[in-house]
Amino acid sequence: MSTADENALRDDICRFARSLFERGLTPGSSGNISVRLEDGGWLVTPTNASLGHLDPARLSRLDASGTLLSGDKPTKEIPLHAALYETRGSARAVVHLHSTHAVALTLLPEIDPRSALPPLTPYYLMRAGQTALVPYYRPGDPAVADAIKGLAGRYSSVLLSNHGPVVAGESLEAAVFATEELEETAKLYLLTRNVNPRYLSRAQVDDLVTTFKCEIADPDALDRQCRAPDCPTHGFGFLGGIAREPAED
Amino acid sequence: MSTADENALRDDICRFARSLFERGLTPGSSGNISVRLEDGGWLVTPTNASLGHLDPARLSRLDASGTLLSGDKPTKEIPLHAALYETRGSARAVVHLHSTHAVALTLLPEIDPRSALPPLTPYYLMRAGQTALVPYYRPGDPAVADAIKGLAGRYSSVLLSNHGPVVAGESLEAAVFATEELEETAKLYLLTRNVNPRYLSRAQVDDLVTTFKCEIADPDALDRQCRAPDCPTHGFGFLGGIAREPAED
Amino acid sequence: MSTADENALRDDICRFARSLFERGLTPGSSGNISVRLEDGGWLVTPTNASLGHLDPARLSRLDASGTLLSGDKPTKEIPLHAALYETRGSARAVVHLHSTHAVALTLLPEIDPRSALPPLTPYYLMRAGQTALVPYYRPGDPAVADAIKGLAGRYSSVLLSNHGPVVAGESLEAAVFATEELEETAKLYLLTRNVNPRYLSRAQVDDLVTTFKCEIADPDALDRQCRAPDCPTHGFGFLGGIAREPAED
Amino acid sequence: MSTADENALRDDICRFARSLFERGLTPGSSGNISVRLEDGGWLVTPTNASLGHLDPARLSRLDASGTLLSGDKPTKEIPLHAALYETRGSARAVVHLHSTHAVALTLLPEIDPRSALPPLTPYYLMRAGQTALVPYYRPGDPAVADAIKGLAGRYSSVLLSNHGPVVAGESLEAAVFATEELEETAKLYLLTRNVNPRYLSRAQVDDLVTTFKCEIADPDALDRQCRAPDCPTHGFGFLGGIAREPAED
Repeated sequence: MSTADENALRDDICRFARSLFERGLTPGSSGNISVRLEDGGWLVTPTNASLGHLDPARLSRLDASGTLLSGDKPTKEIPLHAALYETRGSARAVVHLHSTHAVALTLLPEIDPRSALPPLTPYYLMRAGQTALVPYYRPGDPAVADAIKGLAGRYSSVLLSNHGPVVAGESLEAAVFATEELEETAKLYLLTRNVNPRYLSRAQVDDLVTTFKCEIADPDALDRQCRAPDCPTHGFGFLGGIAREPAED
Repeated sequence: MSTADENALRDDICRFARSLFERGLTPGSSGNISVRLEDGGWLVTPTNASLGHLDPARLSRLDASGTLLSGDKPTKEIPLHAALYETRGSARAVVHLHSTHAVALTLLPEIDPRSALPPLTPYYLMRAGQTALVPYYRPGDPAVADAIKGLAGRYSSVLLSNHGPVVAGESLEAAVFATEELEETAKLYLLTRNVNPRYLSRAQVDDLVTTFKCEIADPDALDRQCRAPDCPTHGFGFLGGIAREPAED
Repeated sequence: MSTADENALRDDICRFARSLFERGLTPGSSGNISVRLEDGGWLVTPTNASLGHLDPARLSRLDASGTLLSGDKPTKEIPLHAALYETRGSARAVVHLHSTHAVALTLLPEIDPRSALPPLTPYYLMRAGQTALVPYYRPGDPAVADAIKGLAGRYSSVLLSNHGPVVAGESLEAAVFATEELEETAKLYLLTRNVNPRYLSRAQVDDLVTTFKCEIADPDALDRQCRAPDCPTHGFGFLGGIAREPAED
Repeated sequence: MSTADENALRDDICRFARSLFERGLTPGSSGNISVRLEDGGWLVTPTNASLGHLDPARLSRLDASGTLLSGDKPTKEIPLHAALYETRGSARAVVHLHSTHAVALTLLPEIDPRSALPPLTPYYLMRAGQTALVPYYRPGDPAVADAIKGLAGRYSSVLLSNHGPVVAGESLEAAVFATEELEETAKLYLLTRNVNPRYLSRAQVDDLVTTFKCEIADPDALDRQCRAPDCPTHGFGFLGGIAREPAED
């Protein structure tokens, strides 16, 4: 990677981080972002740094063995990022936030750890796929890596209990957008969880999977969450969509 | 349209898009905006672009047949925009967002697809008119056009189930402001739906329609939503408005 | 007022307006602000203008009779502003927003039109005083002036049903800050209305009134809202405040 | 402290204040920030100033006796800040906000004044420690100092009833980040208080205390709040964390 390319990437990391921070997606000094470089090394945000005020020149530059080459001391969540890169060969970036609604989701008793969110919207599945929930680990505890490795690379988006989301993407942009979609979907879940909301049906999810290659790690868990749009309990009519309206009795 | 005018319009699209994004009205790379030009062609935001970081020079420029003349590949929601322009002759701009509360509204079982929101405020009716709810379609599915065409141009604001709002306006500004009003009204609905809120009465709505030419596509659906401010269940007194206070028993 | 002073005031109006807009306190093109000048004329925000993008040079400049001297056509809410200036001799600025939670408050059936919010915090009383609720009027309807005049200048903060707050202040800054405090208090009310929250006691309110000259237009309505901090139902202990703890049984 | 250092500190105060304000963490002219200097004097934000628009040159500069040396008149909350510095020898900065959810928390009847928030996340304990709740005092009432002194320096984060949080830190940055974490945790508490959320267990808290030196002022109050993750009522399984999963029956 040329110096100019690396500098552009450093600027992108700081620009996305600032945008996430300013829109309230992670408070104070929480959250961290890494990008894996072609030489196997990383650029990663420093420990105790606020995503709102990063300095591109001070990002931690690690080599492939994790040794700090330049910049500030890296985030203590390195084991978490490393486990995602190790198990997801296509991952080029990892984003970890403390976004409010995704954290709140991890506190709820009804969450299925194999499918933490039901199929509320197509964009959730297209960007984040299914989401796993792993137990609580002390921040920086390298044992979190075992939990991530236990997922065997089948999930690109994972929730850490009482802590927050971590998402891998094939580019920095993809990881950031998937993390935003995850937070948005958690917000929708919390807004509607008590009011019998209409989820996507299994057929609608299958159509998305076929068209957009969404990752469904656990189809059985998904089956339990999908609600048939024409079932007696949840079905209801729509306007204007003649061909697709559920049949009226 | 002169080059200077088109450049000003490109700047306006990017400025409004950025403002919507920064205030949290659409996350990540969601949402898209189009403007129909005098020659029948369009300016439209590119696919996979975040509304927060558009480049005026890279907006997709299409001719009247939909062929890309310059700029990046356009959003895959072109059929959605096209259907609104086709059925609403006065439309000059279309805005589609994934704004949280409007999306949440589409998940609720009680929503009337002919009138997705009750008359909570005058500005909702003045800017957005009544709102239709159409069924879920896979993002980019051209069949959504049939659902929009099924509305026969009677609604300027439409909610796509499990997806988000789409709003047509006679100017870019009008479409943006109507979309914001729709999201605001959805938020008010969700904040108050369980607490017996006071809606506008049918007489108050009629007064707005007469004065401001609000579009009421389905008066019967509206009738069912209006609650009389002086009815035994919902009526309550006010301060200072002597002439208009409901009569006390 | 010198040209330099008027220009500084124009800049202040636009700066406050932009700050309110960017923090989500009024959407789209909603809201308007006026300042009364020494010659009896006004500076006021134009009709159909977004508070987020005002041009200082295009603010409407009216003379004491309400005639437009320069700038764009003024907001159609002129009668509302005029009624507040007429009944509140000390008012130098009026702010009207469509802030979400204050609007939601006007929809609730339990609101007392003489005291729309209970004494949740001291700053609410210090900045906004008590708040009146007046009935719904069509936007721009000059009859709203009669409702405001019916309050006889006893309230600096008023809620318009299904519409939004309007607040008069002795300076632009005071009116803006009072409007923000009103919205914040409405949010607190909505967050806690079902959970038996602890309000200020009447003695605590009296202490504020004595110290800070808070305006209490209707002491009886306030009495009904204050809850004794040591009553059997609502009293509970605190830490560290030995002298002021309610006596334990 | 050199003039250059003091100027940098003034800029930092204004930058953090603006960031807090713009992200909605304190409205209008609420909130104040102080930093204790090496000579025992302070820099503190002025009275009636909005944190969103501070001028570094106009911050109040006090000497060790509290006399104003330069700048605008200081906030009337000086006794509050002074009491925290007096009882917390390591404190170098104090932040006081009117952040919505922390204020709402003080209104709830179920709050334990010795431990105002349960252990929802590790970062809450790492940044803010336990939080005390003190009774209501009139803003600027010097008696609040007695309540703070009654805590004997055992809490770095304190909630003032019907008013807001005040947090001491060993640096400006630490105090700001702890205040943000407190607000975030209050938001999580309010989002999940009715849905049987999973808190950290006492063993998990002890692990944090050992590793990060979190301040636990009242272990008994904490004990009552911790819920065992494998208890019959609250336990539930996780995915991927084999070694730490609660045993299944």
